[in-house]
Amino acid sequence: MNKIRIGILGYGNLGKGVEIASLAAPDMELVGIFTRRDHIVTKSGVMSANINKLTEYKDKIDVLILCGGSATDLPEQGAMMLESYNTVDSFDTHAKIPDYFAKMDAVGKSSGKLGIISVGWDPGLFSMARMLFGVVLPNGDDYTFWGKGVSQGHGDAIRRIEGVVDAIQYTIPQDEALKCVRNGEGKGLTARDKHLRECYVVAADGADKERIRNEIINMPNYFADYNTVVNFISKEELHNDHCGMPHGGVVIRSGKTGVGNKHVMELSLKLDSNPEFTAGVLVAYARGVARMATEGRVGAMTVLDMPLSYISPKSSAELMKELL
Amino acid sequence: MNKIRIGILGYGNLGKGVEIASLAAPDMELVGIFTRRDHIVTKSGVMSANINKLTEYKDKIDVLILCGGSATDLPEQGAMMLESYNTVDSFDTHAKIPDYFAKMDAVGKSSGKLGIISVGWDPGLFSMARMLFGVVLPNGDDYTFWGKGVSQGHGDAIRRIEGVVDAIQYTIPQDEALKCVRNGEGKGLTARDKHLRECYVVAADGADKERIRNEIINMPNYFADYNTVVNFISKEELHNDHCGMPHGGVVIRSGKTGVGNKHVMELSLKLDSNPEFTAGVLVAYARGVARMATEGRVGAMTVLDMPLSYISPKSSAELMKELL
Repeated sequence: MNKIRIGILGYGNLGKGVEIASLAAPDMELVGIFTRRDHIVTKSGVMSANINKLTEYKDKIDVLILCGGSATDLPEQGAMMLESYNTVDSFDTHAKIPDYFAKMDAVGKSSGKLGIISVGWDPGLFSMARMLFGVVLPNGDDYTFWGKGVSQGHGDAIRRIEGVVDAIQYTIPQDEALKCVRNGEGKGLTARDKHLRECYVVAADGADKERIRNEIINMPNYFADYNTVVNFISKEELHNDHCGMPHGGVVIRSGKTGVGNKHVMELSLKLDSNPEFTAGVLVAYARGVARMATEGRVGAMTVLDMPLSYISPKSSAELMKELL
Repeated sequence: MNKIRIGILGYGNLGKGVEIASLAAPDMELVGIFTRRDHIVTKSGVMSANINKLTEYKDKIDVLILCGGSATDLPEQGAMMLESYNTVDSFDTHAKIPDYFAKMDAVGKSSGKLGIISVGWDPGLFSMARMLFGVVLPNGDDYTFWGKGVSQGHGDAIRRIEGVVDAIQYTIPQDEALKCVRNGEGKGLTARDKHLRECYVVAADGADKERIRNEIINMPNYFADYNTVVNFISKEELHNDHCGMPHGGVVIRSGKTGVGNKHVMELSLKLDSNPEFTAGVLVAYARGVARMATEGRVGAMTVLDMPLSYISPKSSAELMKELL
């Protein structure tokens, strides 16, 4: 069977993760990495080129994996790329997913290409768990916990405060709340009960740390509804001790059947590197997109629309024998 | 939309669970329960009839849920029922799944019906987790733990020992082993490390309990490779304290990406009633079978072949908005 020819658009942390994951897949060939720059030195040595050169690769790439961000890159690039390529992306602005889907679906149906959107772990694997758990155990409640992990948005919010040089924020699920939920006693838990927000902040020389601390812990939407711990550290400490990108989380559904039999379903992820793990999900679904596109499927889809067997390199016979 | 008309074949614990679950589904109508007896009193009062009467229901049932066992019922009933009905079953003799699939697939393709086989949680949800985890995190190892739960086969084996009146066996995953696996240090764990086997045995009056204990703990395949605890109790205690059917388990994959970033993925289930929970899975996939059959799909399939969205009563737009 021919290898699936992969292209990567964007070379931030996610793009670098996809580079690693696609090179490791025996059924894939990484054709090149495309960015806004004319040339970059890629970690693997694979060819790189300016995004404008993509037109020359129309017949040389089976699936283009879009590794840009959801705020500005994907809303612009998604539809444009789907004009010429089958695509996979990790669009994760939950509220805007229906609009993004509609736009991608229309473009794909007109261009004859297939794009799978919002692939990753949340949205993605967690969405699958929430859906599956809810259908299997209809009389119950869902809970999602995130962390321990870095929340980029919260770090950004801290950095906008006067006197802050740099900052990182960890979202930490609270053991006590997890325990309640796992015992089927999660009703009434507040945001404050579920997560702690831990901040590591580098303050400018002479900045008023108490003012900064107060501005952080009272910041509406971001911190005011949570217990927040603020630690001031040096630039060096931030760089040395907080350079990883760990994340993870838990989807739990607890419910009842019959005359009061309790059931708890749980999917949990503990990830040392959020972008490298997410890349693994994107590459798996790129395989599925290549196959479904070959079968003539066009438009947009999500992880809920693709049978699991499509993302595996194994044959149906192997899956049945080894995994079922 | 018309309700999905469900029939149940078999009225053991699983059939009773499917009765509860299908009656609770707003998009389903439970038409009747069929058994080998001429008439039974069903818990819900729904119509029951002899299996021979099923021929009269050919056009009145959209999906027949087969609730018999894998040892003798399903190998005989599966193909026979797929001649006339779309079916869902929980065939769980792992080694025989490929043969069973091939037979069902041939029958379904000739009869124009669709049967989904091996639905439940293992095989079923655990198979999906093993497949998904393995594809997303290819460089890693899988571990499955079962319990705490009742193992029917092990209880049966104990009951065959001379001097045993009745018995139940719980399979119990060992916390220490789970901890190792969750830390990515599960290599080399033996069967004995992973599970404890706890037996509650009712001995006949005057039976030699030490002999019975020795026969149990040294029984090859079943107990010899495990740490086994044997408790002798009275018939009344067995009846009062061990009448539930709890089960559950954990699928864990730990692996690495890049330069040594560790990731752990875990699906866990804690179930008060194994048959009632399994019934929830069967009923969800009955919905998917009804839909795929309407679209013209025939033959056999497994949970790995059906997009998740098919098992949900929600529309694609709702799923995208609420769950993705």
